[in-house]
Amino acid sequence: MRRLARLPCCTLVLLLALPAHADEGMWTFNNFPRQLVQQRYGFLPTDTWLDHIRLSSVRFNNGGSGSFVSPEGLVMTNHHVGSECIQELSTAGSDYMANGFYAPTRDKESKCPSLELNVLMSIEDATSTVNAGTMPQMDAAARLTTQRGAMSRLEKECAEKTGLRCDVVTLYEGGVFSLYRYKKYTDVRLVFAPESEIAFYGGDPDNFTYPRYDLDIAFFRVYENNQPAKIADYLIWNTTDLKENDLVFVSGNPGSTNRQNTMAQLEFLRDVQHPAILQFLQVRLKLLRDFSARGPEQARVARDTIFSYENSLKVYIYRLAALRDPDFMARRAAVENSLRDTVAASPNMQQEYGGAWNAIAVAQKTYADFFAENRTLRNALSQSRLYGLAIDLVRLTAELAKPNAERLREYRDSNLESLKQDLFSEAPVYPDMEAVLLAQAFTEISAALGPDAPLVQQILAGRTPAQAAAECVKGTRLASAAERRKLFDGGKAAIDSSSDTMILLARLVDPRSRELRTRFENEVQAVERANGTLLAKALFAVKGTSVYPEATFTLRLSFGAVRGYTDEGRPRRWYTTLAGAYELNVGISPYNLPKRWLDNRKNVNLDTPYNFVSTPDITGGNSGSPILNQKGELVGIVFDGNIQSIASDFLYTDTQARTVSVHAAGIVETLRKIYGADALARELKIASTK
Amino acid sequence: MRRLARLPCCTLVLLLALPAHADEGMWTFNNFPRQLVQQRYGFLPTDTWLDHIRLSSVRFNNGGSGSFVSPEGLVMTNHHVGSECIQELSTAGSDYMANGFYAPTRDKESKCPSLELNVLMSIEDATSTVNAGTMPQMDAAARLTTQRGAMSRLEKECAEKTGLRCDVVTLYEGGVFSLYRYKKYTDVRLVFAPESEIAFYGGDPDNFTYPRYDLDIAFFRVYENNQPAKIADYLIWNTTDLKENDLVFVSGNPGSTNRQNTMAQLEFLRDVQHPAILQFLQVRLKLLRDFSARGPEQARVARDTIFSYENSLKVYIYRLAALRDPDFMARRAAVENSLRDTVAASPNMQQEYGGAWNAIAVAQKTYADFFAENRTLRNALSQSRLYGLAIDLVRLTAELAKPNAERLREYRDSNLESLKQDLFSEAPVYPDMEAVLLAQAFTEISAALGPDAPLVQQILAGRTPAQAAAECVKGTRLASAAERRKLFDGGKAAIDSSSDTMILLARLVDPRSRELRTRFENEVQAVERANGTLLAKALFAVKGTSVYPEATFTLRLSFGAVRGYTDEGRPRRWYTTLAGAYELNVGISPYNLPKRWLDNRKNVNLDTPYNFVSTPDITGGNSGSPILNQKGELVGIVFDGNIQSIASDFLYTDTQARTVSVHAAGIVETLRKIYGADALARELKIASTK
Repeated sequence: MRRLARLPCCTLVLLLALPAHADEGMWTFNNFPRQLVQQRYGFLPTDTWLDHIRLSSVRFNNGGSGSFVSPEGLVMTNHHVGSECIQELSTAGSDYMANGFYAPTRDKESKCPSLELNVLMSIEDATSTVNAGTMPQMDAAARLTTQRGAMSRLEKECAEKTGLRCDVVTLYEGGVFSLYRYKKYTDVRLVFAPESEIAFYGGDPDNFTYPRYDLDIAFFRVYENNQPAKIADYLIWNTTDLKENDLVFVSGNPGSTNRQNTMAQLEFLRDVQHPAILQFLQVRLKLLRDFSARGPEQARVARDTIFSYENSLKVYIYRLAALRDPDFMARRAAVENSLRDTVAASPNMQQEYGGAWNAIAVAQKTYADFFAENRTLRNALSQSRLYGLAIDLVRLTAELAKPNAERLREYRDSNLESLKQDLFSEAPVYPDMEAVLLAQAFTEISAALGPDAPLVQQILAGRTPAQAAAECVKGTRLASAAERRKLFDGGKAAIDSSSDTMILLARLVDPRSRELRTRFENEVQAVERANGTLLAKALFAVKGTSVYPEATFTLRLSFGAVRGYTDEGRPRRWYTTLAGAYELNVGISPYNLPKRWLDNRKNVNLDTPYNFVSTPDITGGNSGSPILNQKGELVGIVFDGNIQSIASDFLYTDTQARTVSVHAAGIVETLRKIYGADALARELKIASTK
Repeated sequence: MRRLARLPCCTLVLLLALPAHADEGMWTFNNFPRQLVQQRYGFLPTDTWLDHIRLSSVRFNNGGSGSFVSPEGLVMTNHHVGSECIQELSTAGSDYMANGFYAPTRDKESKCPSLELNVLMSIEDATSTVNAGTMPQMDAAARLTTQRGAMSRLEKECAEKTGLRCDVVTLYEGGVFSLYRYKKYTDVRLVFAPESEIAFYGGDPDNFTYPRYDLDIAFFRVYENNQPAKIADYLIWNTTDLKENDLVFVSGNPGSTNRQNTMAQLEFLRDVQHPAILQFLQVRLKLLRDFSARGPEQARVARDTIFSYENSLKVYIYRLAALRDPDFMARRAAVENSLRDTVAASPNMQQEYGGAWNAIAVAQKTYADFFAENRTLRNALSQSRLYGLAIDLVRLTAELAKPNAERLREYRDSNLESLKQDLFSEAPVYPDMEAVLLAQAFTEISAALGPDAPLVQQILAGRTPAQAAAECVKGTRLASAAERRKLFDGGKAAIDSSSDTMILLARLVDPRSRELRTRFENEVQAVERANGTLLAKALFAVKGTSVYPEATFTLRLSFGAVRGYTDEGRPRRWYTTLAGAYELNVGISPYNLPKRWLDNRKNVNLDTPYNFVSTPDITGGNSGSPILNQKGELVGIVFDGNIQSIASDFLYTDTQARTVSVHAAGIVETLRKIYGADALARELKIASTK
């Protein structure tokens, strides 16, 4: 599924420009290739059209996308994007993940503990402002520090002036900086969710495949001042007109891509990073499956995390397969060599850009030296939610003492409100699962640093990793939001004098973790950025400006056509029907139709289109994106890409790669005939049929 | 699909006994484990029950199975078993493969050029008769020659006495010889065939998979004296009662298995034979696909042969995968080692049987020396139908001069009638396709023997393989049945003086080909047989007699349960419905529903069970077998096994291996509602529903 992986695994993303090919491209709204679309599909989107789509689009800050579908603040996204909230609202007694949720009236809508939604209000160029303080003689690290300071200042000024969330987004690997202003919604309430069995019908085996039969939807409502927010731009639905080869658009927030990585970077991913991530995921999946087997409550608690690991595992398996495929790498190398040859042919270009590839390659070697330690101290530990809260408290209280422009970027003023929304959320924490994940982190730290390393000895203090983790989880009160707020309010002094076990752990790890981060930022990231900017400029020089930047979990618009494809000799129709869901039902998970589906079968029009495929260019983070026809009407909701689309992380093709969506007609039919969600269905504005 | 592969690839089959495990076993009708079935399923088949099933079962001598389904000689089999006839009756103008065939009245039924059907009338022990002339001091080759002489004599006497077809069948690798008497039908007429697009829906990609949606059926009628044959034993249908876990039986003719092969034999298959067959098939598939691409008539002509090659290719790919799977081979070795250990623990057994494994291993090494040449001169050439006819004429006229007991086994008196049915059939021959296949054979002979070998120089005579093949096909008149009959009637003299190019080729190849065959029979097969008999005796000594012999393309009865399974995490329901066929339809082959299906969709009950899976033990040759409930009623027709069942060639499991059948209800529903085949449907005797 196309939810953004939670693993901060994308530190090597090089945000360069790429020439458009076929229906390729995750375009920024201020550089959408309107002429190209007109030329290819005979439709020219207007500014008004684009503005309406942009303002109807919603970013789910936990890693997904969505859209407004009524003037009363109703938002649709995927079940697997909303599942964090659905899981958090569930208890052993009322399991909305298993049984679904529907609030027929407003007073039944249930507030999500930690969701933040953003709507992109404007985009403004900030390149010259961000670069104002940089000097030609600066080295890469100094340049990056200077730019980050300017970004934090600009964001703070903007937030104070407009009251909006303001993010400076680095595009084209620093070739362009844009100021994105967002309206922010933090009172988000659950309206409707189907049973997870039908939202994720086919489960992990069918994830990233097609044909599919998933009702992967959830509805939320944003509130302001305890009233449903009034929304001017929302999407009209069209349930009847879609047909094969129709032009469609996807408006959402793709998380990251690696299309402009140099071969040296791809080889690093292939040989170091991806294998490490695969092992990381496999170990944790096994642990959580064992944990789930302990009982139904454990299974309930671990479900969403298991989904997330399984989902990422599949992505990395297929990415790694692409990276290990000599043909694929040869095609990728051909792209690089084409630019290398052009640069080499011009003495001026060679002088200016020719050294960039090697500089980036050297940075890969540098990173390989401390990759394992860096990764372990950061990613392994942060699989524990309690540790994540602790390290945020430790760092936040320390960083607040510094000027805004000098802080670690996630603690800049303009981000504080969102950070606190998460830090003080009442979302439940599950201590037993925490202990399992923390023990594994301790084991890995011990392996990476060696058992005699002082940090390891301090963490374990003679205990086994399991004992140390259990005691650490037992001795912390951070599961309580009130406790966290108390510590935050007490500031650095409260943190420094705390005897909370998780705070102690975070304080223990923090210095070494910061050292590694600094080393990474200065010796790897800054080098990649500076030289990536050079390569981006080289590419601009060769290809002109009709290119799109790498994905950055900011709003993009993709386009393409509704189209079936052939998979290992099997032609696949562009849509499936509700009949197919019944055909696959075995009564055993992951083909276990909910009782409501079985009970209401005779009411359902089984020929209703249910899921469908199309060619727009998407990736993780696009989950929940509306998919639109050229009138700007919602014809479905994106929830997945097929397996062939996973290699698009490195190189886009539209031969077989497909976006998988729930069809608008299937949504309306099931809401009405299976869920009896009449009030919800009535609230949707459905275009009258032709 | 479970049609018998035409490749004579099974020369290494060791026909030993195997202990029954789960629902394992392809049992002879005279040694059916009735107690075991009663113990496991609470049903005890009686002699009457078994006799009725046996007499209702039909063997298609082109490599499949079938059953009588009316007292008027109506026989049902698979489309892919009947396709040889359907293809032969088709012309460019009336393509029954593409468009289907239905004779609503008897006078429209169309006679197949070369089909022979057999019904097993009796089984009689012949072990002592066959062994009567053998002496303890005989070596393996002499023993085999003596036994074969006795078999030919016994078959001839039996045929003369009873007027039936009589075959002595070697079971338990010569531990048992049985005389099988068959009633033979050679006037076989086509009654009904659906379009190949729905008979083979999903095509090669879905072959050997499940879920499936294939109407893989065809109806024929046997005639005697130009009247529909009167049939006393035929099957009543049951379309309504089948449910999961029900006991079912499959009565059919499994072709061959390799379950008792020694590890040395399996290693030979893994390292030599299977890789050679894979290459053999892949090359020819490419050639025939290129040939098909020349035009629609070429595509029509090559269709059935392509199907056959694709089918075999998939079988060998998965067999080889099993042989190359260390876990699988370890399980297989454990079976062998268990017997080896038991034998080694007893000095008497060790003395008697202990040397057998090594003797068989030595025979594998011997065969490896001349495998390539033997295979090329036999299998490569015989892909040309014209060459096959020529070599039969050359050998038959020569062999007839010898006493019956001394002939090559296929030319024994008791087999002559069937042989002539094929030799003088009016089935069409396609010269262009012949030339393609013959040219490839010439190329391979040249590669195997070396370009300077006298035989190669004689065949090519300075021409390229393609030229030589084209001239050979152009210069032969063997496509004419009358011409073949004239040559046969002229006897050896006519053959020796013939200047027909294909006869000349066969005469050229015959001496060396016979030499290799003799070497194979004496140095490989006889050794495997003699030592295989020892191993069979060892196993009898250890396990007792409730074991079944390897498959021999003779009638067997398997049992098991209707049962779904889980495939790569996907639970599969035990049945599919007609709705699924519509759901998969794309209008592009291999998911291209015939027009009749689309036109009549509204008449069809889409919930009708269509295909289903169960656990009985089957293999190639079981295609078309009736599948029966415990009342002996037909509940479906076997047409395939899933991919997991392919490794059953070496070792049976029922965890995932499944027999795939068309459900009786799906057949009747489509005959009535889609094909309007009312007369046919009325002729079926359907049990009244509960």
